[in-house]
Amino acid sequence: MYPTILRHPGPTPIPKKVELAMAQSMISHRSEEFVKLYRETMERVKPIFGTKQEILLLPSGGTAALEAAVVNSVSPGEEIVVITVGAFGDYFVSICEKYGLKVHKLEKNWGEACTENELIEFLKPLSNIKAVFVTHNETSTGIINPIKQLARVVQEHSDALFIVDSVSGIGGVSARMDEWGIDILVTGSQKAMMLPPGLALLAVSEKAWKVIEANRSTAYYLNLLSYRDWAEKGMTPNTPAVSLIMGLSAVCDLIEEEGGIAKTTERHEVMKNMVRSAMKALSIDLLTSDEFASPTITAIRTPEGLDLATYLAHLKKKYQLDFAGGLGHLQGKIFRFGHMGYCFPSDILQAISLMEAGLQDFAYSFEPGAGVKAAQDVYLSSLRKRTPVF
Amino acid sequence: MYPTILRHPGPTPIPKKVELAMAQSMISHRSEEFVKLYRETMERVKPIFGTKQEILLLPSGGTAALEAAVVNSVSPGEEIVVITVGAFGDYFVSICEKYGLKVHKLEKNWGEACTENELIEFLKPLSNIKAVFVTHNETSTGIINPIKQLARVVQEHSDALFIVDSVSGIGGVSARMDEWGIDILVTGSQKAMMLPPGLALLAVSEKAWKVIEANRSTAYYLNLLSYRDWAEKGMTPNTPAVSLIMGLSAVCDLIEEEGGIAKTTERHEVMKNMVRSAMKALSIDLLTSDEFASPTITAIRTPEGLDLATYLAHLKKKYQLDFAGGLGHLQGKIFRFGHMGYCFPSDILQAISLMEAGLQDFAYSFEPGAGVKAAQDVYLSSLRKRTPVF
Repeated sequence: MYPTILRHPGPTPIPKKVELAMAQSMISHRSEEFVKLYRETMERVKPIFGTKQEILLLPSGGTAALEAAVVNSVSPGEEIVVITVGAFGDYFVSICEKYGLKVHKLEKNWGEACTENELIEFLKPLSNIKAVFVTHNETSTGIINPIKQLARVVQEHSDALFIVDSVSGIGGVSARMDEWGIDILVTGSQKAMMLPPGLALLAVSEKAWKVIEANRSTAYYLNLLSYRDWAEKGMTPNTPAVSLIMGLSAVCDLIEEEGGIAKTTERHEVMKNMVRSAMKALSIDLLTSDEFASPTITAIRTPEGLDLATYLAHLKKKYQLDFAGGLGHLQGKIFRFGHMGYCFPSDILQAISLMEAGLQDFAYSFEPGAGVKAAQDVYLSSLRKRTPVF
Repeated sequence: MYPTILRHPGPTPIPKKVELAMAQSMISHRSEEFVKLYRETMERVKPIFGTKQEILLLPSGGTAALEAAVVNSVSPGEEIVVITVGAFGDYFVSICEKYGLKVHKLEKNWGEACTENELIEFLKPLSNIKAVFVTHNETSTGIINPIKQLARVVQEHSDALFIVDSVSGIGGVSARMDEWGIDILVTGSQKAMMLPPGLALLAVSEKAWKVIEANRSTAYYLNLLSYRDWAEKGMTPNTPAVSLIMGLSAVCDLIEEEGGIAKTTERHEVMKNMVRSAMKALSIDLLTSDEFASPTITAIRTPEGLDLATYLAHLKKKYQLDFAGGLGHLQGKIFRFGHMGYCFPSDILQAISLMEAGLQDFAYSFEPGAGVKAAQDVYLSSLRKRTPVF
């Protein structure tokens, strides 16, 4: 009866409007109706990516699109750089290593971002790098890398393609693919894009298309040229996830209703600041510094003296509040508070209230209400800036 | 306002119960709820495949699962046989050739099946075949290959793996994977399985697992060993299509309500016979012989004297009846009447009635009602056999 409050990094809650859009009658993927749906929807996704390039749709998880970015643009034996600041950067390394690339790993401690200068220094001794891969928003640590600055470094210090995994970013964080100079930008449906899992979206720069055209990949399902060819006809090479595309159209409605992607990412900034202020007011430590804090997910250290697994299980059982635990060596040390996609300041107030209730159950020493108050202050201040209602 | 009557080979109509199941609240793919859903649902899919092996789920279209079957079990340069009886057999050839396999193509005229003896003769001069690939149900021609017999031939005349594409078969046609000796059996969600596109299902024999364990594929997303490892924990290696799995559970409900997969495939047999009898009564030619006619889709030749494109456009515009045209060199010569998944004898009567109405509009010479009557006879006779209601 009590609804689960899913505050995970994804899959994330689905808006009712999107659920209903996905329950429309099935249509053929070779029909005029489909072509219209596809073309109109893809145009509307472009501002979310900050690109004029075509948006390609793979009927698959984000992992497949990341692999597609790799196998279409580089070849086994070639040298690449992977900037890894957490579990999903390491995941990218695994894909590249399995494919037989020579991977130069720019590795940061979990909880830190990669800075401009670090990348400049790292690239200096490397002369034959074909691509630089980076995670935009690292879901395991709640870090956002400074993509705009890193893109400029790559352009100024190499001929490499700059390939960005923004699976947990796009839709919730600002992305200016063309302006910043991203060559391949990838996202998934199930995070800030407010859809169920099963659809990957990516866009490719003109520079990257030239490289891809010369590549001799043996991939069939992940062959991006084939997706490009079919996109010109308003279709996909094989049967696409039709209902998810119907849902994506409704997602575009919602973002446009909010005032466009800039407003949507602004909301995510507000939610991030609400969570961070609340934790500071509760004297609960955050994993990351404010400077590189993700707008879509916050990693929170275990409140002092509590057993994390017990606390999280308690929140879920008693209050239906479902946070994600830490990954890898951060397991037991942090939990992750997802605030992306179909999530609003009211949801943040609710989750923090319930977190506080849970802390009281464990007789944790704090001033009840302090977290909620701090979050309210951020929210009210943002409203005052945003819309002069009085 | 008027609903489209989608009589395509897929995507096919989605049952209301399945739509609603897919609109359930999102859950984490790393939660206990998910593990329970996954384990229970996969158990219930096994009888549909006729296997005791684990069912693996790829969050992707059927093409990806076909490619997974290829890249996990054979290596570039190796010799394989592809039995192709139509467009989707040729599609399989493309996947294999792009991957760098040496393909021996057993090719049949479109509209014919591959017989036991033909395969025996074809295999005779070949001594180093690693795998034999075949399309179970060829969507482009409405042919069903005699998989049981072909499987026996492969076992008796080679050590090769027998890999079957049943994308438009499983759920609507009988499959006894273990009993017949199929090594990899692949299907998709959007055909007889009554789901939207975006999920591929496959099962692997013990013999094939041994081959896969020794394979050194560089595929990451399509790495079947990784799916097997995670399946043991009741999960998938990356984010699965959670809502489609919720829908799949409802599909299992429906099939079980009908009395199990044997009853469901029996209904498809009846619908096939209804369509074929109707066309015979209308003196409209069928592409295939009765012996190898598909239970899920029927290819019908253009009624004499009609322009096919005009007739099909008319049916869609005036009666909202949507058939699929022919593929490749059969374009303009046949149309395809899909009767798979969420489709019932009543739907066949409806579609044939509307086909007849359309024929009248074109002053086609026939006895109005003759097609419907023939279909009714098949239906009534099947009901008498099935349930003694009087």
